[in-house]
Amino acid sequence: MRRPSDIRAPKHEKTDIVKTSHMNNARCRRPQLASTEIKLAELRGRLAEISDLSAASALLSWDQATYMPKCGATARARQGAIISRLTHEKSVAPELGKLLEELEPYAAGLPYDSNEASLLRVARRDFEKAIKVPSDYVARVSAFGATAYDAWKQARPVNDFATMVPFLERAIDLGREYAEFFAPYEHIADHLIDDADEGMTTASIRTLFAELRSELVPIVRAICDQPQADDGCLRLFFGEPAQLGFGLSVVKRIGYDFDRGRLDKTLQPFCTRLSAGDVRITTRVYDSDVRHALFSTLHEAGHALYEQGVHPALEGTPLGRGASVGVHESQSRLWENVVGRGRSFWQHFYPLLQCAFPDQLSKVPPETFYRAINRAERSLVRTDADEVTYNLHIMMRFGLELQLLEGRLRAKDLAEAWRTGMQAYLGIVPPDDRDGCLQDVHWYAGSLGGGFQSYAIGNILSAQFYAAAVKAHPDIPSEIAVGEFSTLHAWLREHLYQHGRKFKPHELVERTTGGPMSTKPYLAYLRAKYGELYQSPGGLRPLPQ
Amino acid sequence: MRRPSDIRAPKHEKTDIVKTSHMNNARCRRPQLASTEIKLAELRGRLAEISDLSAASALLSWDQATYMPKCGATARARQGAIISRLTHEKSVAPELGKLLEELEPYAAGLPYDSNEASLLRVARRDFEKAIKVPSDYVARVSAFGATAYDAWKQARPVNDFATMVPFLERAIDLGREYAEFFAPYEHIADHLIDDADEGMTTASIRTLFAELRSELVPIVRAICDQPQADDGCLRLFFGEPAQLGFGLSVVKRIGYDFDRGRLDKTLQPFCTRLSAGDVRITTRVYDSDVRHALFSTLHEAGHALYEQGVHPALEGTPLGRGASVGVHESQSRLWENVVGRGRSFWQHFYPLLQCAFPDQLSKVPPETFYRAINRAERSLVRTDADEVTYNLHIMMRFGLELQLLEGRLRAKDLAEAWRTGMQAYLGIVPPDDRDGCLQDVHWYAGSLGGGFQSYAIGNILSAQFYAAAVKAHPDIPSEIAVGEFSTLHAWLREHLYQHGRKFKPHELVERTTGGPMSTKPYLAYLRAKYGELYQSPGGLRPLPQ
Repeated sequence: MRRPSDIRAPKHEKTDIVKTSHMNNARCRRPQLASTEIKLAELRGRLAEISDLSAASALLSWDQATYMPKCGATARARQGAIISRLTHEKSVAPELGKLLEELEPYAAGLPYDSNEASLLRVARRDFEKAIKVPSDYVARVSAFGATAYDAWKQARPVNDFATMVPFLERAIDLGREYAEFFAPYEHIADHLIDDADEGMTTASIRTLFAELRSELVPIVRAICDQPQADDGCLRLFFGEPAQLGFGLSVVKRIGYDFDRGRLDKTLQPFCTRLSAGDVRITTRVYDSDVRHALFSTLHEAGHALYEQGVHPALEGTPLGRGASVGVHESQSRLWENVVGRGRSFWQHFYPLLQCAFPDQLSKVPPETFYRAINRAERSLVRTDADEVTYNLHIMMRFGLELQLLEGRLRAKDLAEAWRTGMQAYLGIVPPDDRDGCLQDVHWYAGSLGGGFQSYAIGNILSAQFYAAAVKAHPDIPSEIAVGEFSTLHAWLREHLYQHGRKFKPHELVERTTGGPMSTKPYLAYLRAKYGELYQSPGGLRPLPQ
Repeated sequence: MRRPSDIRAPKHEKTDIVKTSHMNNARCRRPQLASTEIKLAELRGRLAEISDLSAASALLSWDQATYMPKCGATARARQGAIISRLTHEKSVAPELGKLLEELEPYAAGLPYDSNEASLLRVARRDFEKAIKVPSDYVARVSAFGATAYDAWKQARPVNDFATMVPFLERAIDLGREYAEFFAPYEHIADHLIDDADEGMTTASIRTLFAELRSELVPIVRAICDQPQADDGCLRLFFGEPAQLGFGLSVVKRIGYDFDRGRLDKTLQPFCTRLSAGDVRITTRVYDSDVRHALFSTLHEAGHALYEQGVHPALEGTPLGRGASVGVHESQSRLWENVVGRGRSFWQHFYPLLQCAFPDQLSKVPPETFYRAINRAERSLVRTDADEVTYNLHIMMRFGLELQLLEGRLRAKDLAEAWRTGMQAYLGIVPPDDRDGCLQDVHWYAGSLGGGFQSYAIGNILSAQFYAAAVKAHPDIPSEIAVGEFSTLHAWLREHLYQHGRKFKPHELVERTTGGPMSTKPYLAYLRAKYGELYQSPGGLRPLPQ
């Protein structure tokens, strides 16, 4: 395996540098500084190439999910694979490792939180990770992912788990193969988790989830045993253009910049960054339910506000995007749930929504609407789950994927284990695999151990960041009630967004909230909101399980 | 300069091949054949990578011209430049040259028109061209093009030729630098022309244009001295959605396959191929003139029918696209003009257009409409020119760009030379540079000598191909009159489209029409059509100049 320390500068290095045109200016009077500046410029050039190639990949994916005609898929998989391979080749170039190593003494003299020290630190960490993974593996994963996605798209609607078993087996093998690149490890999933949420491990997430589950289960029980709010007012016919228009006006209002982004339709909503000036969101519209497009648009706009808020100086570097999957998810959840499903938010927006859909909503009182969009219940499908039960879906998946990776659960036994898990975590059992173990593509397409936990981390952090913002600016809720989001947005940009990937997630949480990640603000948020909604004025209290 | 003959196989070549996994099958019994098959597979893999990278470039451009938010431009130029450089690096890889050289004896034993012989022949020709051009030059041209395009976008509306002079000077330098890579040459523009229209030279185009001009000028004079048809019926308000819907239904009817393509709006209409299954067209809609979107959509659909008709076996190779710029333009012109501005075509489509725009057209007789869409006159702007005067715009440009490349005309003197040229070729003089020498971006963005002549070649060939099709199937015009295009489409696909780039343009013209390129069918077409339109029953005859 090639490591940076194995890469030595060739003997003629100094001669080479003197030859470069960069030396034809005043800087040549201070060779040491000039040499560092030249190296930094070369490093930035190499990192920008990697960033630009990644953007090309992102565009290939965005286009596939929005406008690509159906017969374009085969070639698109090939196009994506070659760009991925080239990106990886650029990411492990020995010249890049050499530059990073040579700049190490310079980085050591800079303040930890300076842009340059952060750039050198993060770029080096990325490089050391990347060189452990062969390009061949990256190409195989890319090709497998495209094929498996296609197979899953066909298998899920017809409830065909058997067809997906070999794909799952292959995905497990790929996950294990990946873990071995980073051996030795404490747990086989540790490096997969670290890729998504740097600094977290199997053990730390197990602890976090055990604590969260013990508090959540009684809350879910207290809520789901009560009569449910009627959401009939949301289940009428809502025309697509009006839904899209309303969603667009909402995300514009919260601060999403359409000069640097756009909103399109897709099957599975997502947000993608093509550059600092081009951060796009997508949504899916159901004309028989007004919730879906609205909250998925808000969710993706949360991701987009984060990406649009990264400091321009970090553009084209590995720092020029969100800190981790979990921190990213905290922003989609903050805007979608903590803000977007809040009472204050609808004080401003409900009259506007009524204007957009007078036939459907003019006679529906605000309170009915508010209770309908916050209806909580045990359900089968994660993406439809409310904010209370959502985490139980995640925890169940996390347990299962660890067992799959550990070899304690065989691929073919997943469907049965899923039913058992649903019974244990949510108290209901799916009638088929379509709404059971086939509902998410993640595992089949090769993302084993690298994703679901981030959604729960995002939920936890969404409340923690929001609480910190409100602590700093107690007027935020009353501003939201009049459609004013700039204080909240500015606080998040200053404390979170602008830093991009400069800090590790735990550093960022410390800097932003003054303490480590904690489930307390999240549980307090749920208890206050659902305690009030479910006629329990003091908030729900944990009950013995 | 690296040439294929300089690349020698390493001594351990045979050992290497024996080691490959490809040998673990029956083919290892015939080592010679196996070795050829392995090399062919490797060659195809390398060519597919080049094709896929080019597709990624094409998507970056398509997106920039359709959906990219305005702040995405800076990063997009960078993203395009790196993909261009990587594509060129792959195109000049020594391993590619070695494979092509080693497969030469095999190619020599295959029939000339077989797919494999054609692939090896064309790939080798491309390689030998590509290795003469340094990657650095490709990157510089790409960067210059993006910057110059931006500058032109701002300079044209404010009539600011002075700002564009340095860009034009730089473009001339780049054009000359390119020519030097291919020295010695007979004329400095020869290789630029050959890139667009293989086999053509400055001398052959001069001869062609001299002949065409001597015939065209009297026709133009005879037409433009007569009273012009009234096109007021086309200059009303026509709503955009209905225009787009009508255009879409028309190109669907002529055979454009929307499962393998799509239609979007843009500023400057174009057609782009992302793969055999993804060939997209774009259009521009003016709500005050129904002509523009309609004929630009037909024009681009003509290009797209060609690309969609290339044989699937050629996908992912250098053969998997149209033969040359001129032949490509023949198909856009055939469908836009020869078919789409014809009387038969509107026998079928005019009632449908009246249905789409009853307020505007229900009282306009078919003959009035037909004469309005075929109104011919001396005009300032090439892209608005009718099919009779269009070629004069091209010829004037061709003369000027030769003078610029030869150094006989200085960049700063172009505006004046343009006015003189317009007077000589069309008998009118532009009042400003906006509609004079600033109207086309081509030269300023670096495309000097490589494009305009193809438009005239396309006009000439459009009539020649159509005449050959009608000779083979005399019912084509009456089929068109009832909205039936399959005979014409199938004939073009069989004789032209399916071959992709297997044959040089002149070979293709010979195979398809039984003779060399000729202006006769084109002039006969113009005389018949405009002779009838302009009350000259016997057709217009050339008059002394």
